[in-house]
Amino acid sequence: MEPLKNIDVLIDGGMILSMNKDRQVIDKGAIAISGDSIVQVFSSDQLSKDQAAKKVINAEGMVVIPGLINAHSHLAMTLFRGLLEDLELHRWLEKVWKYELSSLNEENVCVGSKLALAEMIRGGVTCAHDMYWYYEAVMALSEEIGFRLISGPPITGIGGLDFDSMVAQARNVLENAEKYHYVIPIIQAHSTYTTTPRMMDTVLELKEEFGVAFTTHASENKSEVEDVTERFGLTPIELLQSYKLLDDKTILAHCVQLNDEEIEMLSESGTHVAHCPESNLKLGAGIARIGEMLEAGINVCIGTDGPASNNDLDLFGEMRTAALVQKGLYNDPKILKAIEVLEMATINGAKAYGIDHLTGSIEPGKKADIVLVDFRKTHLTPRNDVYANLVYSATKADVSTVLIDGRLQMEAGELVAFDEDALMADVQSISDKFE
Amino acid sequence: MEPLKNIDVLIDGGMILSMNKDRQVIDKGAIAISGDSIVQVFSSDQLSKDQAAKKVINAEGMVVIPGLINAHSHLAMTLFRGLLEDLELHRWLEKVWKYELSSLNEENVCVGSKLALAEMIRGGVTCAHDMYWYYEAVMALSEEIGFRLISGPPITGIGGLDFDSMVAQARNVLENAEKYHYVIPIIQAHSTYTTTPRMMDTVLELKEEFGVAFTTHASENKSEVEDVTERFGLTPIELLQSYKLLDDKTILAHCVQLNDEEIEMLSESGTHVAHCPESNLKLGAGIARIGEMLEAGINVCIGTDGPASNNDLDLFGEMRTAALVQKGLYNDPKILKAIEVLEMATINGAKAYGIDHLTGSIEPGKKADIVLVDFRKTHLTPRNDVYANLVYSATKADVSTVLIDGRLQMEAGELVAFDEDALMADVQSISDKFE
Repeated sequence: MEPLKNIDVLIDGGMILSMNKDRQVIDKGAIAISGDSIVQVFSSDQLSKDQAAKKVINAEGMVVIPGLINAHSHLAMTLFRGLLEDLELHRWLEKVWKYELSSLNEENVCVGSKLALAEMIRGGVTCAHDMYWYYEAVMALSEEIGFRLISGPPITGIGGLDFDSMVAQARNVLENAEKYHYVIPIIQAHSTYTTTPRMMDTVLELKEEFGVAFTTHASENKSEVEDVTERFGLTPIELLQSYKLLDDKTILAHCVQLNDEEIEMLSESGTHVAHCPESNLKLGAGIARIGEMLEAGINVCIGTDGPASNNDLDLFGEMRTAALVQKGLYNDPKILKAIEVLEMATINGAKAYGIDHLTGSIEPGKKADIVLVDFRKTHLTPRNDVYANLVYSATKADVSTVLIDGRLQMEAGELVAFDEDALMADVQSISDKFE
Repeated sequence: MEPLKNIDVLIDGGMILSMNKDRQVIDKGAIAISGDSIVQVFSSDQLSKDQAAKKVINAEGMVVIPGLINAHSHLAMTLFRGLLEDLELHRWLEKVWKYELSSLNEENVCVGSKLALAEMIRGGVTCAHDMYWYYEAVMALSEEIGFRLISGPPITGIGGLDFDSMVAQARNVLENAEKYHYVIPIIQAHSTYTTTPRMMDTVLELKEEFGVAFTTHASENKSEVEDVTERFGLTPIELLQSYKLLDDKTILAHCVQLNDEEIEMLSESGTHVAHCPESNLKLGAGIARIGEMLEAGINVCIGTDGPASNNDLDLFGEMRTAALVQKGLYNDPKILKAIEVLEMATINGAKAYGIDHLTGSIEPGKKADIVLVDFRKTHLTPRNDVYANLVYSATKADVSTVLIDGRLQMEAGELVAFDEDALMADVQSISDKFE
């Protein structure tokens, strides 16, 4: 192998799970990074002595995976963690909206979101969707930290907001997409149960004009489906279809209550599903029929939903829950293998939001969004099936080192860009005032 | 408060969740330990300056809970972790038995069990049930380490073993119970599907003679219930009742496939249930009706089952899965509150095995089996509901310090009695030979 030049970071000696389309695994591999990008992935024994790099990260004993992608969340809801226990969805929403309308401002949303970014980086998440208030400030925060954030102005029929100004804001963000390096601007609508025909038409116009991803909540629980059906004479999925909003640039969060025809509609249109199993269970919404969605060829990714209904932003926990619960739902241990769940949490999320040219796998040419998981642990021994160990036995705490866009965000358990003690104190003091 | 005398360890400054019958919480408390026992639990501000202790553990920022009790497991199956993925229970059992009969010996069972003890202590488990081969060697190991082990010779109709010698061994262990300090000897039978009438009669005799706890697998999945019903004309639960084996000294593992009458039978007889949700899901067995069992007044505790079907010995993960899945099963977020799940993992396990005078809560007079969970973490901030944070957001990696019987087993993340690197290498090399 020719010696590589201009290598900024070399990650050497770990087992690399590339999550590329061949599911390539290198038992003892190296990743060469130049600037923000991966330039080569190869076996460590091909490494010549003169392979100079500004920084070498020793990955011995580590399993190296692409950064995880949290495909659906509401980051600043860290502020509400533990405040909304044992409530049904409609009661839960009432309480959330009460807190949101009475207590939130740009400053406390940024503090809550910053805690969320720290928590996610600690847990190996390098890219996350966010749907929340004060999104522009949170986008700026994410740029400052260097975290890949999928966000945009949520268009919603609640909260007494002015529709025209909401759309103008959305248009403004989308027109200025190139000013962001880390943020991926998308179109968002809250849900079909907070929508109007005018809102749906506007979403379609924006979709056609800007060609970016669109996401919304859909069919999260039975009462939502009943409400929407009563109001519009169509289920949430049918309603979205009637407004031409189902296609391969649409990501629907939840999709717990789908009938066979609706699964077929998502499959035929190429619509993506963001599965949030822990939130769905915790709010008593039910269990999405992921086994059948995968069977139908639907691209399913994984999200944590907000920490007020989960109660964390932990994709390791979410992968485990997803795998276990589907096996339980179908009484079939062969459904949803560990490697498929890891795909859901990495490359499938990237595909859903149209960013699989940037992230979601470890391949030359992609951005260096990379996570080192320390396998030198009793609960990860023996290592007979590395994917099973990752999904069933590893926790977020086994994440040791995290790079986003070639930049170190955590090294050997230490976060680079956060004063965590101050941040935790700030969040506690904000949250204390909610009661 | 009078100054206490002869204090060996003082744990000071943490939030104490006593898990006693009043569910007492002390926001900033202290626990005084003398020898192996808790002598006093009190508010830190009552602490006088002359409160001398040989060792003071600063618990500031920590939440202090009773040691967790793993109510059903097969410890040495750490050796098989990741070897038995995506298999149905009967195929899974076939493969396990093949490995067990061809490859196990006293030495490798002890190595696998030792890894299990290390893994459990790291995860805040201070007492565990074990049903496995070479139990006497594992009991000796547990005495040596100082881990509270609930074990005994498993009586089983499989493996071509000599029944009389199996019973003689069981009798020998029970007659010599007083030679153990840490081990709690019990009576074990593998299951109703590996049983004979003679075996059941013998179990009853041993129960009546020694008055200790008895445990067996029961109604884990549909095919087991069908097989037993076909063979005996009775379901597993009915069969156990017909042999007078249902009472308040019996703990049944799994109980996934119970009908209403069987729930009633367990309730009326005072029989305990060891719930193993992750193993049940992973093997496609189903979801136990825990909500209705609790409603019926059954004492439910939690186990991980063996690491070959879980794939770990993590009671934090198990508590979360238990809570989430019950809410999902009943479509009711109000079922199984976080505090109830923590009771299942602590005091309920102690009650089931008749050792609640020794452990399961933090109370004067009980043994000092105590776990400090470090809450100074982003994912545990804010602390609005300490039980919800413990069950939904904490992981085993947040456990910082563990005492069993007043002895420090882990301090600030460092295990006392294990050479983990050597142990992990040994387990990997044993497991490598299984393929």
